[in-house]
Amino acid sequence: MNERYFDDLKRGDRFKSEPLRVTEKELIEFAHRFDPQMFHLSRRRAERSIFKGLIASGWHTAAMSMRLFVQTLNFAEGAIGLGVDELRWPNAVRPGDVLMVETAILKIRLSKSRPGQGIIRFRNVTVNQRGEVVQTMLASVMVPKRAARAIG
Amino acid sequence: MNERYFDDLKRGDRFKSEPLRVTEKELIEFAHRFDPQMFHLSRRRAERSIFKGLIASGWHTAAMSMRLFVQTLNFAEGAIGLGVDELRWPNAVRPGDVLMVETAILKIRLSKSRPGQGIIRFRNVTVNQRGEVVQTMLASVMVPKRAARAIG
Repeated sequence: MNERYFDDLKRGDRFKSEPLRVTEKELIEFAHRFDPQMFHLSRRRAERSIFKGLIASGWHTAAMSMRLFVQTLNFAEGAIGLGVDELRWPNAVRPGDVLMVETAILKIRLSKSRPGQGIIRFRNVTVNQRGEVVQTMLASVMVPKRAARAIG
Repeated sequence: MNERYFDDLKRGDRFKSEPLRVTEKELIEFAHRFDPQMFHLSRRRAERSIFKGLIASGWHTAAMSMRLFVQTLNFAEGAIGLGVDELRWPNAVRPGDVLMVETAILKIRLSKSRPGQGIIRFRNVTVNQRGEVVQTMLASVMVPKRAARAIG
């Protein structure tokens, strides 16, 4: 797939990522490293929690969603995160779930402070194999214009 | 340290986490898995980016901050993430940086829909060894009351 620059996007563009399967091993490994809470760590203890079973850390879901977004948009020189708003996890992610990210470009504009860079505002919705929404977020990234290439 | 329940917190409480050192190996490993962009992946390519060197994925910073928060607050039955707002990364995290999370409890209330649970609104600020802010966020979590223990 072609690499993208700011110039290649417009308001209203929509993208769908490839699917990504979540394994129990990865879910527990992420939790051990970054979110050591019992409903992310231990199947036995998670079964006694309000989730009635192991669920992924929201930060793991966010990280997997980032991977799918990066792969899908495939920015030639990367996208620099300016901030995230309204990050929500309306349904739990469980071992074996298959995630996919749907991206909608909400707004694009040139950067005022950095010539040759553009700002992209988008919404990412992460869904599972049943179409249930497991994460939503609004975010802004800075992405170079094609003409800026020689500067980089 | 004692495990905490909703009952143990009040508005205005402040906490400081232990320090956590970010290694180049972990930074690159996280990027390979979740945020494969050149300024997170390769020292050589990152040196030619606007960051002039390797920086951590914002999602890695968020995940490390979660670990420090979880360890510090030490909720007896975990804290369930209800959502995050205004997640920002005002300064880059680089290999060798030492991160610390400062938590301020902004608001607490009982859950309307789930008896025995409370909702905590807090701000986490992640700083590096020079006191520079590398991440800020507002978030809400649901935490059980001590009396709800028998239900769990």
